[in-house]
Amino acid sequence: MVNYPNGKTFTQLNKVTSESKKEINLKASFSAANRGMNLEENINISNEYYLRKGIALITKRPTPINVVKVDYTNGKRIIDAYFEKQSTTDYNGVYKRRYVDFEAKSTRSKTSFPMANICKHQITHLKNVLSFGGLAFFIIQFERYNEVYFLDASYVIDFYENGSRKSIPYESVKLNGTLIKQGFSPRLDFIDAIDNFYCLD
Amino acid sequence: MVNYPNGKTFTQLNKVTSESKKEINLKASFSAANRGMNLEENINISNEYYLRKGIALITKRPTPINVVKVDYTNGKRIIDAYFEKQSTTDYNGVYKRRYVDFEAKSTRSKTSFPMANICKHQITHLKNVLSFGGLAFFIIQFERYNEVYFLDASYVIDFYENGSRKSIPYESVKLNGTLIKQGFSPRLDFIDAIDNFYCLD
Repeated sequence: MVNYPNGKTFTQLNKVTSESKKEINLKASFSAANRGMNLEENINISNEYYLRKGIALITKRPTPINVVKVDYTNGKRIIDAYFEKQSTTDYNGVYKRRYVDFEAKSTRSKTSFPMANICKHQITHLKNVLSFGGLAFFIIQFERYNEVYFLDASYVIDFYENGSRKSIPYESVKLNGTLIKQGFSPRLDFIDAIDNFYCLD
Repeated sequence: MVNYPNGKTFTQLNKVTSESKKEINLKASFSAANRGMNLEENINISNEYYLRKGIALITKRPTPINVVKVDYTNGKRIIDAYFEKQSTTDYNGVYKRRYVDFEAKSTRSKTSFPMANICKHQITHLKNVLSFGGLAFFIIQFERYNEVYFLDASYVIDFYENGSRKSIPYESVKLNGTLIKQGFSPRLDFIDAIDNFYCLD
């Protein structure tokens, strides 16, 4: 992991190529990421890395939107629409020929991950994924600790259905999950967590 | 395959339960489907069947929409947005633990399937799927014949990259693809086509 205490040091460079500029921006943004990381953005950038390196193909499902009215007079512009509830999960893809499906959630709580963050449809969907032999899990970020955990869906499903509490204690996530390594590239190495958790050919 | 020459025969029933009403609607709509089938709708309904029967889990990716402006005064309403190009494909999911990814396209041509229907991003995406060991294919409907074909992505990719023509002749689709069985349930048995084409455990 590369640490850059502040972005300003980069400005000391006199000549920068377009490529190194891009690199600098990436590093600066990684540095910024450590101060209140945007989980979704970091997963997306990690996915680009995995694809580029031929490791895995993971895509984000677009947010479902119900289009009510389209104006064709000015190009093809949507002028009335509303967000629909995601009935599945945010991400899916393929790793080592296997189907991968997961939901990423973030919490500002220091003590637990609130189950209210997960809707019933998503639990049903992930149960289905497991029943079809897919890999199903959650990526859970504890913002205050800047920690991101991999947690197999079966644990969360069991907690959702049989748990007496309405949130998974932080300590339980720590114990049953895997801390995802953070770095420059990939930002969040959740494939490493998959490798550690599942035995894949 | 069950044939229902016209939907009116169902109205002869005197007493119908809510369940049988639903069944009737399905049958009537199946009957209607034969006269200008909506490909997407039929795939979606087939996917519901596969899920219900524990055969496969296939979901449709929502249409990607770029939201420009949201009005919060009246609930949370999108008042300016536009459609983005789908950079991947319409459908993906899991069958026999394997990742499945496909694009569904329809043509009114009687002689060929125009490659203009497929964008470069989709070809790139399906090449990636194949390289990661996923199953990648197209479902191509020839509306005028009411025929729907399963066609492995590798054939389409090869044609896209090396073909001298800008469309795949109907006869080539017939020869290299698999005619998908149509029925009441599932409407389009593309899983059967997968079974016939790939050797899965």
